[in-house]
Amino acid sequence: MLKEPPKNSREKTKNLLLTLQDKICSGLENVDGKGKFTEESWLRDEGGGGRSRVLKNGSIFEQAGVNFSEVQGKELPQSIISQRPEAKGHEWFATGTSMVLHPKNPYIPTVHLNYRYFEAGPVWWFGGGADLTPFYPYLSDVRNFHNEHKKACEKVDQDLHKVFKPWCDEYFFLKHRNESRGIGGIFYDYQDGSGNIYRGNNKNGEASKASQNVGRSNLNWDNLFSLAENCGQAFLPSYLPIIEKRASQKYSPKEREFQLYRRGRYVEFNLVWDRGTIFGLQTNGRTESILMSLPPLARWEYGYKAKNGSREEFLTSIFTKPQDWFNDKELEKFCMENNIFD
Amino acid sequence: MLKEPPKNSREKTKNLLLTLQDKICSGLENVDGKGKFTEESWLRDEGGGGRSRVLKNGSIFEQAGVNFSEVQGKELPQSIISQRPEAKGHEWFATGTSMVLHPKNPYIPTVHLNYRYFEAGPVWWFGGGADLTPFYPYLSDVRNFHNEHKKACEKVDQDLHKVFKPWCDEYFFLKHRNESRGIGGIFYDYQDGSGNIYRGNNKNGEASKASQNVGRSNLNWDNLFSLAENCGQAFLPSYLPIIEKRASQKYSPKEREFQLYRRGRYVEFNLVWDRGTIFGLQTNGRTESILMSLPPLARWEYGYKAKNGSREEFLTSIFTKPQDWFNDKELEKFCMENNIFD
Repeated sequence: MLKEPPKNSREKTKNLLLTLQDKICSGLENVDGKGKFTEESWLRDEGGGGRSRVLKNGSIFEQAGVNFSEVQGKELPQSIISQRPEAKGHEWFATGTSMVLHPKNPYIPTVHLNYRYFEAGPVWWFGGGADLTPFYPYLSDVRNFHNEHKKACEKVDQDLHKVFKPWCDEYFFLKHRNESRGIGGIFYDYQDGSGNIYRGNNKNGEASKASQNVGRSNLNWDNLFSLAENCGQAFLPSYLPIIEKRASQKYSPKEREFQLYRRGRYVEFNLVWDRGTIFGLQTNGRTESILMSLPPLARWEYGYKAKNGSREEFLTSIFTKPQDWFNDKELEKFCMENNIFD
Repeated sequence: MLKEPPKNSREKTKNLLLTLQDKICSGLENVDGKGKFTEESWLRDEGGGGRSRVLKNGSIFEQAGVNFSEVQGKELPQSIISQRPEAKGHEWFATGTSMVLHPKNPYIPTVHLNYRYFEAGPVWWFGGGADLTPFYPYLSDVRNFHNEHKKACEKVDQDLHKVFKPWCDEYFFLKHRNESRGIGGIFYDYQDGSGNIYRGNNKNGEASKASQNVGRSNLNWDNLFSLAENCGQAFLPSYLPIIEKRASQKYSPKEREFQLYRRGRYVEFNLVWDRGTIFGLQTNGRTESILMSLPPLARWEYGYKAKNGSREEFLTSIFTKPQDWFNDKELEKFCMENNIFD
């Protein structure tokens, strides 16, 4: 049986996610040095509202969007009822913080983060994650991003990261391109401390296998709250060192063009495959906040192919496929030989 | 009972649509004067193939894509079987020509065209249409586009256009923006000469009402073949006069920026709402050909609002809503007073 959430669960998660939004925004303004977030608060007719923050034309960030929302309702969408029938007939509550950063310099990766909490009667769960989408990746940057998130998960449970990493590879995948969105990170959903850790649809995938290997989840509400807290706090140390390393790297129009082209893939993922985006747009969500994830500028080019052996080709031959970033010695050697290790 | 198609139905429609592709490409190269189409032929593992043509960086067209495809298969997708159960178990055939033009000058509208034919055992139908997406519209251009398509429909049947015009408004609609994609045109699907002309999902919409008013369809295969032929041939006269009028109009970075911003809406429609695009991407279609519809460059801007009374505001207050372009005298007066009639 599902453990009950604490009495003040809604207030606690709301405050956690508001604080996370604050900390991230202040960390980003700090590293940008020039751009400032502007804020719009909004109310939802059916109940609840949000706080959308956007920074435009900074020195680092071409656009940075960090949203918080907290919404309530009486009627659950059918998609949730069919997933969790016990939730039917209960009023519901959902809160989340989400972020997408589009840096100007193509050597700095695009990045996404989202942590969320849902409650309806006896049903509750946590979800979230963060994933990195580089254009000109370096293995040491990739490792730093993964390592910080791995440590954050392991503070709560030694096994979670073994599932959340392949789950991220599985979720952020563009089937029509046969490409991952980037180098991954962590992703989790429907975490209520019981049953299988993996709750996705691909029963034969790597995440499902890893989940079977580590056995059933045995966490309580507080553990999962800490997980969101730890992972949220891991974001700045996972990403700021990459900015500090790459911000001064010179780039030419060629790299900029490639960045804009690859941003097209980001648009494709978000509009074609991302369940949250599609669900939001089709159910009367706040469009401007949902689509804050889209890049300020993007490009499409029919039939584009990167030159064999080029930096651009490495992106799709290596970095948009799931990899064992820490232990694959061949990958490490390849990156060193091609000056894309550090 | 459904009338049988002629023995050579597949060859006839294929040739019609190949010829249409040829005529359109040659008309477009002619008006562009500089850009030339390059062609890629491709084969599909499961049967059939296509001929994709793209013109890049012309003097008029920043990008023009005109596709032809002809595909066969043994197993029908579930979505078609549930729509037309009689088709089950039959091998199927589908052919189509589709086109999207992205002109450089913001005073020339983006435009889309698609004509297609489907056959499986006793089941067959025609579908298609064309719709115009201006950035800085003029009423006379809008009327010319509609008028040519109206005449083409009326050559076959006096009533069809009364249904196809509102059906187009209904189909090319961005629910999450509460905007039409543009000023519309014509749209039809599942036309087999019997039953209701309107076959969409909105039983209470304008198209459904118009369809009920005009009564049941009574056309044969040859009539519907002629419809595709007439409408396909109507495209160049519906669009080329607009180019000729607008190509020399000067524009500044401000108009270009607005065009790129509105192209973002085009991306949103195609990836979020267009059934053909989504179906193609999710079922292993040829991605590069399907996404040839996306613009070479597009822009998103959080919270953009056009200035009251500006040309940019007229676009969404007037031209992305369904209108009676010919008979609305107030609209005509407004356009004349604001120098956007001709």
